Amino acid sequence: MYTNPIDEVLNARSIAVVGATHTGEWGGGGFFTSLLTFGFEGRVYPINPKYAEIRGLKSYPTLRDVPEAIDYVISSVPAREVPKILEDAAQKGVNTVHLFTARLGETHRPEAVELEQRIMGLAKGFGIRLIGPNCMGVYCPSRGFSFHTDFPKQSGSVGLVCQSGMLAREIVLLSPLRGIYFSKVFSYGNAVDLNECDFLDYLAHDPDTKVILMYIEGVKDGGRFFNMLRQTTTVKPVVILKGGRGASGTRATASHTASLAGTFKTWETMVTQAGAVLADSLEELIDLATSFHFLPPIRGRRVGIAGGTGGSSVLAADQCEHAGLEVIPLPPEFSQELKNRGVSVWDWLSNPADLSIREDDRLSVGLILEMMAQNPNFDLLIAIMGIPGWPARQSNVSFDVYLKQHYRLEASQTKPFLAIVPDKSLGIHDVESREWKATCELRTALINLSIPFYPTIGRAAVAARKLTDYYQRRDQ
Amino acid sequence: MYTNPIDEVLNARSIAVVGATHTGEWGGGGFFTSLLTFGFEGRVYPINPKYAEIRGLKSYPTLRDVPEAIDYVISSVPAREVPKILEDAAQKGVNTVHLFTARLGETHRPEAVELEQRIMGLAKGFGIRLIGPNCMGVYCPSRGFSFHTDFPKQSGSVGLVCQSGMLAREIVLLSPLRGIYFSKVFSYGNAVDLNECDFLDYLAHDPDTKVILMYIEGVKDGGRFFNMLRQTTTVKPVVILKGGRGASGTRATASHTASLAGTFKTWETMVTQAGAVLADSLEELIDLATSFHFLPPIRGRRVGIAGGTGGSSVLAADQCEHAGLEVIPLPPEFSQELKNRGVSVWDWLSNPADLSIREDDRLSVGLILEMMAQNPNFDLLIAIMGIPGWPARQSNVSFDVYLKQHYRLEASQTKPFLAIVPDKSLGIHDVESREWKATCELRTALINLSIPFYPTIGRAAVAARKLTDYYQRRDQ
Repeated sequence: MYTNPIDEVLNARSIAVVGATHTGEWGGGGFFTSLLTFGFEGRVYPINPKYAEIRGLKSYPTLRDVPEAIDYVISSVPAREVPKILEDAAQKGVNTVHLFTARLGETHRPEAVELEQRIMGLAKGFGIRLIGPNCMGVYCPSRGFSFHTDFPKQSGSVGLVCQSGMLAREIVLLSPLRGIYFSKVFSYGNAVDLNECDFLDYLAHDPDTKVILMYIEGVKDGGRFFNMLRQTTTVKPVVILKGGRGASGTRATASHTASLAGTFKTWETMVTQAGAVLADSLEELIDLATSFHFLPPIRGRRVGIAGGTGGSSVLAADQCEHAGLEVIPLPPEFSQELKNRGVSVWDWLSNPADLSIREDDRLSVGLILEMMAQNPNFDLLIAIMGIPGWPARQSNVSFDVYLKQHYRLEASQTKPFLAIVPDKSLGIHDVESREWKATCELRTALINLSIPFYPTIGRAAVAARKLTDYYQRRDQ
Repeated sequence: MYTNPIDEVLNARSIAVVGATHTGEWGGGGFFTSLLTFGFEGRVYPINPKYAEIRGLKSYPTLRDVPEAIDYVISSVPAREVPKILEDAAQKGVNTVHLFTARLGETHRPEAVELEQRIMGLAKGFGIRLIGPNCMGVYCPSRGFSFHTDFPKQSGSVGLVCQSGMLAREIVLLSPLRGIYFSKVFSYGNAVDLNECDFLDYLAHDPDTKVILMYIEGVKDGGRFFNMLRQTTTVKPVVILKGGRGASGTRATASHTASLAGTFKTWETMVTQAGAVLADSLEELIDLATSFHFLPPIRGRRVGIAGGTGGSSVLAADQCEHAGLEVIPLPPEFSQELKNRGVSVWDWLSNPADLSIREDDRLSVGLILEMMAQNPNFDLLIAIMGIPGWPARQSNVSFDVYLKQHYRLEASQTKPFLAIVPDKSLGIHDVESREWKATCELRTALINLSIPFYPTIGRAAVAARKLTDYYQRRDQ
């Protein structure tokens, strides 16, 4: 039977937070409060000699003072106290310790590096598994784990393995704005014991996780990692953002998680050969999560584009082509059908379909998208929405209904269907504007309709291209 | 003395709008209403046989019926009526006609192409200059010209020459969100007479214009254009976005403004040699406008970065290096000064400066930025702001004051200083959130403090690199 050390964490029936405090979204207070507010179903023990009780629960001076068994410990105390905590934990039969505790290997100071080594040795001797040090640990809303109180309580189907805790925070807070929620998130820092392989392996086998995201600064166990990656990517997509690519980034990873970043070219080749999808930035990581979550497999690169005006259609074609998509001309039978329908600009309309040239109601963006969906020459469709001046929606119709009708979604969503809705650098006055509010409403409606949206055509095109590559490789 | 045919447009004392209507932000109604609401100081004549008066002004059946002289005509009537309008205009001594009128060469239909030829011949014979056809014409808020009623009334120092009218609309409406306003905007469509060269030449000599943006699908007069570009870029920056780069984009320009896009590689080489800055997307065009507007010349590529946390600092280093900036290590004297100041992490802190490792008030983002500004090894500074969880500002302090103190702007703005403030794909609920509203307030304050901001570090880095290249070239 398959087992993974992470199971013991997520199945823990009792958790102690060493360094728990009354307040704060961060550190000991944040972990402790989150277990209570996210509804962790087991027992929770605050450990802090300064307090008699915290949030209505008896606080114990040390782990040893807890009268019952403890499965999982979160350490939020200074590094020098960790050896003592491990000794106590061993006494209490603890399986795993998450070291939020930092100031160890990542400082590159001899005494800190030495202490980290000692911690590793002690844990190994006691048979205790370690998460971290220098990390945020586990977020799993369905089991009541979170590292911040302001994380979403809603579960999703995306898993995240993130070496950086603050980056995990950014990803968890920004993704819901694109309709993405998480099954499990692991922040694992310096990875002196449990590392990227263990977390990847866990998510690979997790039925609640359909898409895996990773942010990795340095791989601890290259051979095992690439083997595992090769197996996992045949089952579910794995999207990886690498931190520390060039000289300066590598220097930064050393002082962040004590990682040796290695050569990016070698990494790129190996990861791609293993079937993973590489993200080039944080934004792209979230774009790819959105794409894999909402879209069915994309089986080819031939894109149909509609909804832009003149200049934006030209730029859309450029950006799609630059990303490696094929912006094919309208097929002859397509133009013929437009002619048969009495569309006056049948010979002029192209792909991208610039709808600003329409002369009457016989031509509409919905018609074009429906025809593209039904025509076997198109593999995916992109609708440009939300440019200034848009939408010309009647205010008495809800956005969901408007979108369904205007874009003929019943037909056009039979193919992979992406929307472009620009982000705008709103200032304090603009946030009140009717038009920008309509854009916000549009995004909410798109999420309800399971349509992924992207702030620029370039970003959508890159994501679509990478999805195509992933599925083509998997199909082979 | 230098003269340009555009002077006759902007100095017009009387304008007739053929096809003026009572309502609408678009077309004849939009042009006519804009002249009134933007405060055009000359006489305005609506021409429309359907009405006796429009918005309180007497409407004339034809141009010939206007009792006084007319300098400038805006045509918003079907193409077939244009020859007649030109004949009437010639009678009235009109200098220039702007043809909003479309459905000509861009349709590639023989009868339309022929009509366009006839229009060109007539205008030439009458000595009338043409703007367009198939374009929005002139936006110059200080002179009361606009093509939409919802454009900003505020003038700025950026000029725009834009072959696409709808793209001009996007740029004009999106730029104020980054603190950018316009001196003059010219949308010139099919460019059968006045073309990119005339508008570029005008803006090159315009004292109100400090930065020139261009969106070009096809150049009408290559030799003249590149000569003019070479001269202009020694005086002020010219940023160019090319529409129609690959096969599909070129096809799209043909049906949009009847332009022959040419080979992008050749174009890229020639434009770069002429000293212009190439933008790769609409977003980058606006990023570059923002950068040239707010920043002093950047004299080198060595960047100092502060304000991010661990993972975001690593990614910031990667993105800057990828864009060709040099993320140099902290110079020895820099670390020594930190040590002298009693900063405990003096040996650990790096560039990017990850301030999440600070242990007390002796280290702050303001101190680091001030020291970077004073250290000759740094050419520009990037401050990462507005990531989720940020800012930890006291609510009783205004953002302006907070920013000045927190980032020690008096010192740190002595070097080119850029801020990163992420855009977020807000939905309808998020727009009410306190944290996102604080981000909006932050952007407003940054504009007040003349600090350009960018939604991603990657976009800031690319813009900064391109500025550096521009100024280094100009200095040579």
